[in-house]
Amino acid sequence: MFEKLEKQTLSGRVYAQLEALITGGEWDIGSRIPREADLMESLGVSRNTLREAIRGLVQVGLLETRQGDGTFVTANSELSAILHKRMRRSSVLEALEVQHALDREAAALACRRRTDEDLERLDRFAAQCREAMNGEAEDPDAFKQADWNLHRAVVAASGNVLLADLYESLFEKLQISITVNRGIAGSRYEVGHPELIAAIRERDAERAARAVDDYIARFKAPHEQEHSEA
Amino acid sequence: MFEKLEKQTLSGRVYAQLEALITGGEWDIGSRIPREADLMESLGVSRNTLREAIRGLVQVGLLETRQGDGTFVTANSELSAILHKRMRRSSVLEALEVQHALDREAAALACRRRTDEDLERLDRFAAQCREAMNGEAEDPDAFKQADWNLHRAVVAASGNVLLADLYESLFEKLQISITVNRGIAGSRYEVGHPELIAAIRERDAERAARAVDDYIARFKAPHEQEHSEA
Repeated sequence: MFEKLEKQTLSGRVYAQLEALITGGEWDIGSRIPREADLMESLGVSRNTLREAIRGLVQVGLLETRQGDGTFVTANSELSAILHKRMRRSSVLEALEVQHALDREAAALACRRRTDEDLERLDRFAAQCREAMNGEAEDPDAFKQADWNLHRAVVAASGNVLLADLYESLFEKLQISITVNRGIAGSRYEVGHPELIAAIRERDAERAARAVDDYIARFKAPHEQEHSEA
Repeated sequence: MFEKLEKQTLSGRVYAQLEALITGGEWDIGSRIPREADLMESLGVSRNTLREAIRGLVQVGLLETRQGDGTFVTANSELSAILHKRMRRSSVLEALEVQHALDREAAALACRRRTDEDLERLDRFAAQCREAMNGEAEDPDAFKQADWNLHRAVVAASGNVLLADLYESLFEKLQISITVNRGIAGSRYEVGHPELIAAIRERDAERAARAVDDYIARFKAPHEQEHSEA
């Protein structure tokens, strides 16, 4: 009675193959996946099997079907798909408190484990942040991307892959919106997080923690009144 | 061509109904779900539709089908199912570093937001920890459960539901195994985390942070050599 419900059904194997194309980056986020007929042929499966696998991927949040337009990649891992779903139900303040937790730990670990290559990467993204905000041709989009890359590079320098996976899955979309909301100009003096990078260079964990506390407090300020304290 | 791939297919609605039974706790973790014939009747759907929904829930990790034995509930939310999957690939040290991040932030927030009810709950679980470890009738299982309840209560007192959801989903299974591995007797003097609870009672965030640093450092010690420092 239950033999068809096993994990390794044919559609389960097709699900795994398609998932691998998404997580491996062969199908980029935002791109449309190939036509049904082409997938049926290349995978050698029936329409029903293919549709069942695709419905599963839609259910998890990796794919999204737009009526009359096709099926698109919306996330690149089950983890990020599910965490995005969860993040939609949380407030900015809640998200910033979780970011505080992870940024602080990442900065402390980066002080111990960062390599010279990590430092080069941090310096490069910091320079891109400054370039994007300097001169007359301000480029907020370039700034947002460089700023996000800088945060990811700090977390990567922590040497903790679990922390990095959670961080990227939780904050990739949020980071962008926070950067926009806080009014970039207001914090220009710390564009590229010079204080944090200096602390990581010197392996000074206390100074790094203060730098994180400082920028998180600034992001939180406009949202603090939303939360009624006991 | 794609009309059957929409999110709100019949099987998608059945998936949502079954998911609600799981997340709502009507179907407990570890329990067997009702027979296929009974579900078909109570949901008013065909065998194929039901099986498709169940396959989706198996795929996400909420259900597990055991050949010849039935289908069982393995997680109570998509979030915890996916995070359990991810945790299986991480080292104990990685997990402890993430726990450090979340415990520290939770303790700091609990110092600001804890209510008297939170304190009562903390005291109750701490007493249960001590009872389980006192006298001749040591009860490691009761200790593990009370210790986990205590950690959850600290995170709940943070007033951050996102933080609490992530924490429970990440550590529910892990917490138990860490408690076992570290050798309970070795840390008996701090059974029930009296220092942490005192700090939260006094709303002393620095003292709370030190208490967290202290017990995490003790859990980490046996695993530190696994990680090669730069």
